[in-house]
Order: sequence, then C-alpha cells, then structure tokens
Amino acid sequence: MKVFEKRFRVEALTDTIEMDGPEVQHMRVLRLKAGDEIHLFDGTGWEARARIEDLDAFTVTMIVLERFQNDLELPQPVTLALALLKGDKLADVVRACTELGVSRFQLIKTQYADVPDLGDNKLVRLRRIAEEASKQSRRAVVPEVLAPISLKQLPSVPLGFVAHPGTQDTVLSKLSWDGQVWFATGPEGGFSASEVELLKQKNFTPVTLGKRILRAETAPVALLGAVVSTGV
Amino acid sequence: MKVFEKRFRVEALTDTIEMDGPEVQHMRVLRLKAGDEIHLFDGTGWEARARIEDLDAFTVTMIVLERFQNDLELPQPVTLALALLKGDKLADVVRACTELGVSRFQLIKTQYADVPDLGDNKLVRLRRIAEEASKQSRRAVVPEVLAPISLKQLPSVPLGFVAHPGTQDTVLSKLSWDGQVWFATGPEGGFSASEVELLKQKNFTPVTLGKRILRAETAPVALLGAVVSTGV
Repeated sequence: MKVFEKRFRVEALTDTIEMDGPEVQHMRVLRLKAGDEIHLFDGTGWEARARIEDLDAFTVTMIVLERFQNDLELPQPVTLALALLKGDKLADVVRACTELGVSRFQLIKTQYADVPDLGDNKLVRLRRIAEEASKQSRRAVVPEVLAPISLKQLPSVPLGFVAHPGTQDTVLSKLSWDGQVWFATGPEGGFSASEVELLKQKNFTPVTLGKRILRAETAPVALLGAVVSTGV
Repeated sequence: MKVFEKRFRVEALTDTIEMDGPEVQHMRVLRLKAGDEIHLFDGTGWEARARIEDLDAFTVTMIVLERFQNDLELPQPVTLALALLKGDKLADVVRACTELGVSRFQLIKTQYADVPDLGDNKLVRLRRIAEEASKQSRRAVVPEVLAPISLKQLPSVPLGFVAHPGTQDTVLSKLSWDGQVWFATGPEGGFSASEVELLKQKNFTPVTLGKRILRAETAPVALLGAVVSTGV
C-alpha cells in the first residue's frame, strides 16, 4: 500500500466518491492502484484521507476514511481587488497571492490601466492558476477569480486597505480579524486621485509600502507578505 | 528647454561630466539636445540635476547644477542572502527585491537547490536587472549582486532573519535599524535542518511567513514586503 502526499481535488467529500476526468489519468500516471491511500480536498476547507477501491482507465472509486478541516487559511476570508495588468503579470500575482492566503480575487477596471478588459480565456486560465497554486501551497480553499468590474461597482467593505504611495498609515497597525478583509492594488499607472477617493469612501484605508516606487505586480505580494509575516 | 524625469547613471557626479556609450544613444533617441536639463545618479545614493552642454553622435558633456542625496533608501543597508533558483526566478526576485530596497544580494549555494552554480553570463544579467530595477524605482543605489558562495562562507551577521516554515517568531517584532540587516531565503527544496542551524549560529533568527507553503521566489518578496509595510 502506498500513502500519497499528493492531493486530489473532488467535488464533495461524500463517504464513497466516484470520479472520472483528468484526475483519474493523473492517478494512473502515478501508478496508484486499489488499496492505496490518497489525500483529497474539496476546495472549501475540508480534506480527507481516502482509500482507492477501484481504478480503471476512466473511473476511480474511493472511500473516505477520515475527514478533517485544513487549518492553513487566514483567520478571515481575504479578497484582493486587483487592477487588470498586462501580459502574464496577473497570473504571477494570482499565483503568489494564492500562496499567501487570498481567498478571492476581484479583478477591477481602472483609469490608468494598460489593458481595458480581460478575455474569457484569460479568466479561465487565471482560475486554473489559482487552483494549481492552492494545491501547491497545500491550502484546502481554491480562491475564486471574479470577472472584472469597474471600481464603482466594488461594494463598501467592512475593512479594506489600498496600497498607495505617499501615505504614512501602515497596514499592520490597522489590521484586525473581526471580519472579512479587503485589499486593493492598482494598475501599472497607479490609481488616479479620484479612484483613491472612491476607495476611501468604500472604507479602504490608504497604506504605505515604503518610500520607493513598486511595480504593480510587486505591490500585492508585498502587501500580503506584511499580513502573513504576523504568523497567520 | 526640456526637463527630463528620466534618470541617467554616471560614474561620478563631478562638476563637468563627459560620457560616451549606450546612455548617449539613449539620450539621442529621446531627442535631448544642448540646453536640456536631465537627472543623473551615481549608484551610491547621490543624484544631481544637470544641463546638457553638448551632445553629438558618441559623446555627451553635462554640467552638474545641483547635487542632492536621494532619500529612498532603507534606514540601513539590507543584504539578501538568496539561494540559487532555477530559470528566471532569480531575476524575478532580484527585480522585486531591488524595488523593495535591498542594497546587496549575496547568492548562496545550498543543499536542496535545483541548480548547483551560476554561470558568469547569468551573473552579469542579474546585475543589469538590479540596475534597471533601481532606476525604475527611482533609487539612487544600484544593489550589488555577489557571486555565489557556500552557506558556510556567509559571515556572522549583526542582525539577520531567515524565512523558515513552522516558526512562531515574527520579523517585525525583532527588526531594528541600529546597523546592517540581513535576510536569507532558501531554494525550491528549502533549507535543510543543518543549514538552518548554521544560519542560527551566524545570528539569523528563523521567522514565520504564515502557515502556508510559499514558493522559493515568493518568500523573499513577502519578507521584504513586511519590512517596507512599516513605511521605511
């Protein structure tokens, strides 16, 4: 019997699980067989140890042996409102910020962005990247990646922070985990003054990331880095 | 007369500066001409406003009008001891951590690294990337990128931090700016237990970056992100 560290995603952690699709091919490539124990997760925070009962060319049947809640999530759900970026930069940010614990990405259209909108294919790709990064960092939650909306359509948030040059306030002096937390980071050209005003009205506090100019793809990783440096 | 925001690097900020090489071509592409004001920096923290006296196909002559110290540096020099990484990951880390204020990269060879050493060409490329990133983030210091040494060859440091999973200590609770600060981050496979012991002997304190597994190229950006989130 092998016990595999590798984690497979399933729709739901019912007592008996039948599954087909690419994960089955993946199991066969790994030479898994009936009797082997594997590790499952459902994308909502639950995981399980399971045993393979049967594995043929197209279908696997598994029995859940033990369920447990994965404790690798941040204390509260964190949403990153992320301005559209050029090229592969969005993918880089989604990958790194998934590792850092973000549970939802809300893409946003902004005034100084180099790209006006995002195609459906690219959105699908970002979702796949979020799923891969979630697996790799052993999280049990796969972050949502929500299609772009305008900044105006963003809700008023309970607690929010926007990375903004020239600010003195620090994120860690104001961060609390009493409820959901939002972060916002701008496009290559930064947020405009009126966009920052709008974000303030929606309860986002401008916070510093030091005195230097950061690229749009560095700022969100630095901001979430500050959050996880507290040990959460 | 034009006044250019774009910054050009010079060897030294003497009263009169003659220069040839690629920066001259760059000035000609930007259609700069005698009488225009430009912004110079010497890579050690000093900048200057200067006037172009003469610009021909190969040479530019400039007169320094005003020198000033750039205040975008961290309170003390920061060195990142960075394990060798595969592919373009080193370049990504050098770029982002230059923006975040690192003033020296000491590449290190480690036990679980996927690459044993670094070719001279790649070292030259990393130095070019550090220079570009320094310009873009408007820093006046171009970080050094030092050729790889073994972990044993690292000096004992006055104050150091190593990102290490499973630790409770936090970087910001122990960071002070009384002298030089060092950070260390590992390769794809992480530091071995004996490497962490060695780093501790050299005065590096293991610190947390949260409960999830970060990729080797995310950890240094997150760690420096925590540092700059204090406003430095």
